[in-house]
Amino acid sequence: MASNSFGKIFTLTTFGESHGAAIGGVIDGCPAGLEIDFDLIKNDMDRRKPGQSKITSPRNEDDEVQFLSGIFEGITTGTPIGFIIENKNAHSNDYDHLKDTYRPSHADYTYQQKYGIRDYRGGGRASARETACRVVAGAIAKKILAKHNITINAFVSAIGNLNIDTEKYVSDSSWLNNYNENIVRCPDENAAVNFIELIEKTKLAGDTVGGVITCVCNNMPIGLGEPIFDKLQANLAYAMMSIQATKGFEYGAGFEAAKQNGSSLNDVFYEDENKKIKTKTNNSGGIQGGISNGMPVYFNVAFKPVATIMQQQKSIDANGNETFIDPKGRHDACVVPRAVPIVEAMCALVLVDALLMNSKLQIL
Amino acid sequence: MASNSFGKIFTLTTFGESHGAAIGGVIDGCPAGLEIDFDLIKNDMDRRKPGQSKITSPRNEDDEVQFLSGIFEGITTGTPIGFIIENKNAHSNDYDHLKDTYRPSHADYTYQQKYGIRDYRGGGRASARETACRVVAGAIAKKILAKHNITINAFVSAIGNLNIDTEKYVSDSSWLNNYNENIVRCPDENAAVNFIELIEKTKLAGDTVGGVITCVCNNMPIGLGEPIFDKLQANLAYAMMSIQATKGFEYGAGFEAAKQNGSSLNDVFYEDENKKIKTKTNNSGGIQGGISNGMPVYFNVAFKPVATIMQQQKSIDANGNETFIDPKGRHDACVVPRAVPIVEAMCALVLVDALLMNSKLQIL
Amino acid sequence: MASNSFGKIFTLTTFGESHGAAIGGVIDGCPAGLEIDFDLIKNDMDRRKPGQSKITSPRNEDDEVQFLSGIFEGITTGTPIGFIIENKNAHSNDYDHLKDTYRPSHADYTYQQKYGIRDYRGGGRASARETACRVVAGAIAKKILAKHNITINAFVSAIGNLNIDTEKYVSDSSWLNNYNENIVRCPDENAAVNFIELIEKTKLAGDTVGGVITCVCNNMPIGLGEPIFDKLQANLAYAMMSIQATKGFEYGAGFEAAKQNGSSLNDVFYEDENKKIKTKTNNSGGIQGGISNGMPVYFNVAFKPVATIMQQQKSIDANGNETFIDPKGRHDACVVPRAVPIVEAMCALVLVDALLMNSKLQIL
Amino acid sequence: MASNSFGKIFTLTTFGESHGAAIGGVIDGCPAGLEIDFDLIKNDMDRRKPGQSKITSPRNEDDEVQFLSGIFEGITTGTPIGFIIENKNAHSNDYDHLKDTYRPSHADYTYQQKYGIRDYRGGGRASARETACRVVAGAIAKKILAKHNITINAFVSAIGNLNIDTEKYVSDSSWLNNYNENIVRCPDENAAVNFIELIEKTKLAGDTVGGVITCVCNNMPIGLGEPIFDKLQANLAYAMMSIQATKGFEYGAGFEAAKQNGSSLNDVFYEDENKKIKTKTNNSGGIQGGISNGMPVYFNVAFKPVATIMQQQKSIDANGNETFIDPKGRHDACVVPRAVPIVEAMCALVLVDALLMNSKLQIL
Repeated sequence: MASNSFGKIFTLTTFGESHGAAIGGVIDGCPAGLEIDFDLIKNDMDRRKPGQSKITSPRNEDDEVQFLSGIFEGITTGTPIGFIIENKNAHSNDYDHLKDTYRPSHADYTYQQKYGIRDYRGGGRASARETACRVVAGAIAKKILAKHNITINAFVSAIGNLNIDTEKYVSDSSWLNNYNENIVRCPDENAAVNFIELIEKTKLAGDTVGGVITCVCNNMPIGLGEPIFDKLQANLAYAMMSIQATKGFEYGAGFEAAKQNGSSLNDVFYEDENKKIKTKTNNSGGIQGGISNGMPVYFNVAFKPVATIMQQQKSIDANGNETFIDPKGRHDACVVPRAVPIVEAMCALVLVDALLMNSKLQIL
Repeated sequence: MASNSFGKIFTLTTFGESHGAAIGGVIDGCPAGLEIDFDLIKNDMDRRKPGQSKITSPRNEDDEVQFLSGIFEGITTGTPIGFIIENKNAHSNDYDHLKDTYRPSHADYTYQQKYGIRDYRGGGRASARETACRVVAGAIAKKILAKHNITINAFVSAIGNLNIDTEKYVSDSSWLNNYNENIVRCPDENAAVNFIELIEKTKLAGDTVGGVITCVCNNMPIGLGEPIFDKLQANLAYAMMSIQATKGFEYGAGFEAAKQNGSSLNDVFYEDENKKIKTKTNNSGGIQGGISNGMPVYFNVAFKPVATIMQQQKSIDANGNETFIDPKGRHDACVVPRAVPIVEAMCALVLVDALLMNSKLQIL
Repeated sequence: MASNSFGKIFTLTTFGESHGAAIGGVIDGCPAGLEIDFDLIKNDMDRRKPGQSKITSPRNEDDEVQFLSGIFEGITTGTPIGFIIENKNAHSNDYDHLKDTYRPSHADYTYQQKYGIRDYRGGGRASARETACRVVAGAIAKKILAKHNITINAFVSAIGNLNIDTEKYVSDSSWLNNYNENIVRCPDENAAVNFIELIEKTKLAGDTVGGVITCVCNNMPIGLGEPIFDKLQANLAYAMMSIQATKGFEYGAGFEAAKQNGSSLNDVFYEDENKKIKTKTNNSGGIQGGISNGMPVYFNVAFKPVATIMQQQKSIDANGNETFIDPKGRHDACVVPRAVPIVEAMCALVLVDALLMNSKLQIL
Repeated sequence: MASNSFGKIFTLTTFGESHGAAIGGVIDGCPAGLEIDFDLIKNDMDRRKPGQSKITSPRNEDDEVQFLSGIFEGITTGTPIGFIIENKNAHSNDYDHLKDTYRPSHADYTYQQKYGIRDYRGGGRASARETACRVVAGAIAKKILAKHNITINAFVSAIGNLNIDTEKYVSDSSWLNNYNENIVRCPDENAAVNFIELIEKTKLAGDTVGGVITCVCNNMPIGLGEPIFDKLQANLAYAMMSIQATKGFEYGAGFEAAKQNGSSLNDVFYEDENKKIKTKTNNSGGIQGGISNGMPVYFNVAFKPVATIMQQQKSIDANGNETFIDPKGRHDACVVPRAVPIVEAMCALVLVDALLMNSKLQIL
C-alpha cells in the first residue's frame, strides 16, 4: 500500500538513505524451495555498482549483501527474506553545503516541501543507491524465471544523440549466445566504442549525458499480465518509471506506432513448423490485450542525464535567495550503463509477480 | 488487488463486457459531501462516445449512466458509488464469425489462451467500451480536483506523421482561456484541419491511423506523489499504459531528454515576484524525485492505429488453420480524439489518489 | 484497499444502500471455467432473506440477483462478475422520523459524525441488507471449494441463554449426511423447538434476542492460511467481525482454552490407518501456526440482539435534545438464523482466497 | 498483500526467524516530523522480553533495536523506518532433536507441509520472537496516538480459572491515574497475587496455563473505522488473532451480548453537561456500525496455554512414526503477562491506521 513496496504477491519493500546506517529490503512472497544463487546476485550488484570501470563514478561502494532471514541452508523457506547493505563509503561532509540549498532537477526541494524535513546527505532517500535493493530482489526473481526458461536481457541502445539499430536485437535472440557485455553494455561493439568516447568527452566537459535502455524478454509463456489495469505493459511502465532519472517508456513499436496505419502495424498470426502460434511481425511487443502472447516482450526506457554536473550552477536556498552550487562529490557522467541491471531487476519483479498471479488460476 | 481495480484510496473497480447486459463500476473512497456534477459527467461521456462526429464510428452508444448508490440528494455520502451503463446498441451478430478466429493485434488469442474461454462478442472485456466507466469516475475525480483549483486538459498533438508544437501548450496555460474543443480535439486550429483530413483519407482507404495525446495539469500543488515506487510519473505511466491501444508514455522532456546534457536539461530554480518558487524551464514536467513541484505536469501518450481495419486480413483459427477475416462492424478509423477524455479521466484518478494519499500526512 | 472490498485474490466489492435503487457487487479474481450454480445461489439467498418463516421479519424482499458480466453461457470467463439486486420492497416512509434522530446502538450517530451526511432510509449503507451481496459471492466461492471437496456448514448453537452441545457437531461430520435444516437452523431438533419458542416469546414481548452461530469446515486441505498476519484464524475473525451485529469470535477451544493447561489442551499427533496424520483432539480448531492442518476448522460467532425493538426508546436528536423513538418498520426479533448463510458465505470467501493464495507456491 | 505486512497506510512489514541472524521490520507510511521516543520503545520492549521476572522464561534476550533509516536527528522523515534486532542469545542446539519431529500444537507440521522445508531452530518464523518487531512499531504508533490524546492500556484479566471484574476497569479510567504495573500486569492487586501463585504452581508442575487480556482505549475520537469490511472491530479482531497463541476475541459486551435482549443491551444516548454526546452504558464497546463513537473502546483476547510443556509428550516424526518429545529449552509457564505490550502494540497499529485513513476524508 505504502509507496516503498513493489508487487502484489512477490513483493519487495525497501528502506534506507544514501548516508544512513544501511539500506535494505524485505522480499515477501518468494516461493519456498528456491536455491539462492549468490553468484548471480553478486554479479548483478557488480554491474550496478559505481567504480566498476573508467566511465563510472569513482565511488567505491562495498555493496555486500547480508541476508538476515528467509533462507535456511541456502534454500528459501517461504518466509520473508530480509537483507541489509551497510553504507560504508559515505562522504557525508561532501553534502554539508546542500543542507539549505535546493539542487536543480534534484528531489531536495520537493522532499523538503512534502515532509518539512529531509536527510540531505547524499540525496538521502532519493539517491539511486536505493536501487541496489531492487537488484538484489531482481536477481532472486530472475532465478525463479530461469526455472521457466524466461530470460531478461537489457542493453544500452542510445547515449545522447547516438543510437543503434535495436530491431536486430529484439527480433532474434541468437546474438545472446555469444554475448560478452562491454563496459557500456551495448551489444553493438562499434557503437559501444562511440558511446564510451561520448561519455568520456562529456565527463571531461564536466557535464552529463542521457541515454536509452532496451530490454528483451525471451521464452515468454502465454498468459502473463492481467487485463484492464494490470496489463503487463502497464506494470512494466510503472516499474520503469519508478526508477530514478527515467523520462519515458515505450514497448513494441512504441511511439513509432502512433505514426503508422493499422494495415502496416498489425501482427499477422501463423502457425510455425512446430505447431506453435506466432506472429510474423512483433509490433505488439509480445503483449496483446495486456497479456503476453508468447513472442518476445521488449521495451525502451529513456534516462535523462544525471542532474549533478561538475559545473557551477545557479539555484536558490531555503529562504528563496539566489545562490550558486559548486560541484562536489563523486558522480557519474552517464548513469545509463549502470542502470542496465536495474532495468532487468524491475522487469524480473514484474514478470515473477505476473507469473505467480497467473498460476493461481489453475485451481479448478 | 485484483486487476480490475484502480487506485489505493480513491478506487475504481470496473466490470462488464462490450455485449453483455451492462458495464459498470464501483467508486470507493470518494470523500463525503461532494456535489455530483452530472453535466460534467455527461459532457465527458459525450466526448468519449462513438457517433459524435464525422470522424468517429457510426455506432450510437446510448451511454446513460445510472447511479445506484453512494449519492443522497445529489451529494456523495462517503459510501461506495455503484453505477451501470446498459449495453443497448450491441450488434452481436457482427461477431459470430470471430468465435473461432483470432483477429490480428487483438486480444482474442491471449484471452483464449489465458482463460480457456472468452466472450468474443464485440471484443468482450477487452473492448475499449470499458473505458466509459473510467470516464464516469474521472469526471467525479475532476470535481474533487477542481476544489483544489487543479485542472487537467488533454489534446491531440499528433495524428500519423502530422504533429503540432506542443511546447507552447504546456509552457503557458493562457490558451485555455478561450479554448473551444474541435472534433479532432487539437488546439492548433490549422493542424486540426490537416488531422481531420488525414483521418478521413485513411478511413476512405479502409485503414486506421494512430496518434499522440498530450495532457497538461495546471495549478498543481506541491507534494503529490510518493517517493520510490509510487512516484507520480510511475502512477501516471501505469494509468496511461492501462488504456487500450497505448504504446508509450513520456513526461517532461521525455525521450528527448535522453539525447541531452545535464547542463542544458537542468531546471533552474528561482523565486518569482510573488515569492513563489518556480523553475525557469520545466523539463522535469513538474515532478522531481517522484513528487510534484508546483509547476505544470505534462506528458505524452502514444496510441497505435485501431487493429480492426476495413480490409481483408490473413489470420488463423482456433485450430491453427490459416483463414481470412473480412471486415465487419462499425469502427473508428482513428480513436485518438475519442481517447482524450479517457486520458484526462485516468490522469484525474491518479491525481485524486495522490492528493488523498498526501493529505494523510497532516495529522501530527 | 478501500473498505468496501474483501479478499486479496478472489475479491468482493459491494455497494448499495438499503433503500437506494439497488445493491450489488463485483467479484474479481474468480477463476475462469467455473460453472455457476444458480440454484445454490438462490438457495442461500432464500436462507438469508426475510419473510422466510414465522420467526423472521415479514418484509418480503424480492432478492433477485441480476448478473451483468463475467459469465458467458453459464461459465465464468475470468473477468469480473458484476451483479445487482434491485430494492423493490422498500418502505422508506417508515424512516422519515429518523432523519434527525439517532437510534440507540445503531450506526446513525457514527455515520453522521464521520461523514456529515447519511442516507437514513432503512439504515442506509449500515443495513444488513448489504450482506445479500456477500451471500451471492459466497455461493460462488462454495462452488470452487466443492471442487476441492471442502464443505462449510454453519448452524445456530445458542439463542439467548439456551445452547446446545456443539462438541458433537464439530468432532464428527456424520450428522451432516441426513441433516435437514429447520427454520431456526439448529441441528439439535429438541433444542430447535426451544430456540423457536424463545424467539416467539421474545417477539411477543416486543423485544429481540441474540445468539451464537457455530461453523464447521470439513475436508480441509493442509496449508491454507499464511503465517504471521494473514493467519487463517485472523482472516476468519476479520471476516466474521465485519458482519453486522457480531460481538465475538473464537476458534477451536476458544475462550475455554484460556482456562486450561498445556498438558490437557495440546493436540497429540498420530497416523491413522490410511497413513494420514491427524490429531487425537482438535482443540487447535484445525489450525496451527495460522495454517490449516487438515483437521476440521470450526469457530463460534456471537451475535448481539437486534437493536431495533418494538418498544419506545429514549434517545437524542441531532441537536442533542432528548427524544423518544417509537417502533416502526418490519424487523426480526432474532436475526441469528438468517445470519447462518452469511457466516458460511464469509467463511467461503476466506477459504477460497486462502486456497488461491496458497496455490501460487506450486510454480517451482 | 503478502502476509508479512500489516496495515494499509501506516504499515509494518516484519521478517526474521527466532534463531537466524536477526529479526527486523520496516515501518512505512509513518508521518514525517514525529519525535521518536526511544525510552517508550525500550520500556515496551522490556515489558515483552523474557527474563524480566520470576514468572517468565529465564532466556535473556538482549532486544536492542537498531534503527537503520527513516529517522534523521531523532525525527521521522516520512521515509521507511527500517530496524533490526540481532539474535544473540539463541541456543539452537536445544532444537536439534526437533528437526524431524512435530511438536503437539506447534506450527512444525503445518510449516513443513505448506513449504516442504522449515527452519526448525527455536520455532523459526513461527516463534513469538517475531512479536518484538510489532512492539517496536506499536510504540511508535502510540506516540502518534498520544498527539491525539488517545491512550491504550491492556492488562491481564484472567489466568486459568481465575479472573477479575473487568467492568470497573473499562467503564471508568480513573484507576489509570495511579496505576503501577505489577509483574503479572493485573490492576487488581489482590487478584495479581493469586495469578502469580497459580503461574508458579503451574510451572512447578511442568505445565503451562492460559489467560485473558483486556485492552481499553480512552479518549477515542469519533469516526475511526470504515464501514462494511474494515469495521474497527474487524481490524482489531484481525490484529489480535494474528498474535501467536490467541484463541478468541470479543469487544464490548462480547459473547455475553448473545445471551441478552435488545431492551437491556442497547446503549442509550444522552448529552452530558459539556454538551458531549455519550451513551449511558457502553455495551457497544465504543463502536457502532464499525465506527468509533467516542466512548472507550475495549475488548478481550483469549490466550491458550503455551504448547511447550516440561513433560514428556507423545508425538510423531516426519515419517509418521510414533515418538516422544522430552522437554528442553527455556520456556514460559504462562506467556500472558508478556503478551500485554503485544496486544497494546497491535491495537496501536490498528488505531493509527484508522486515524490516517479517516483523516484523508477531510480534503473537501
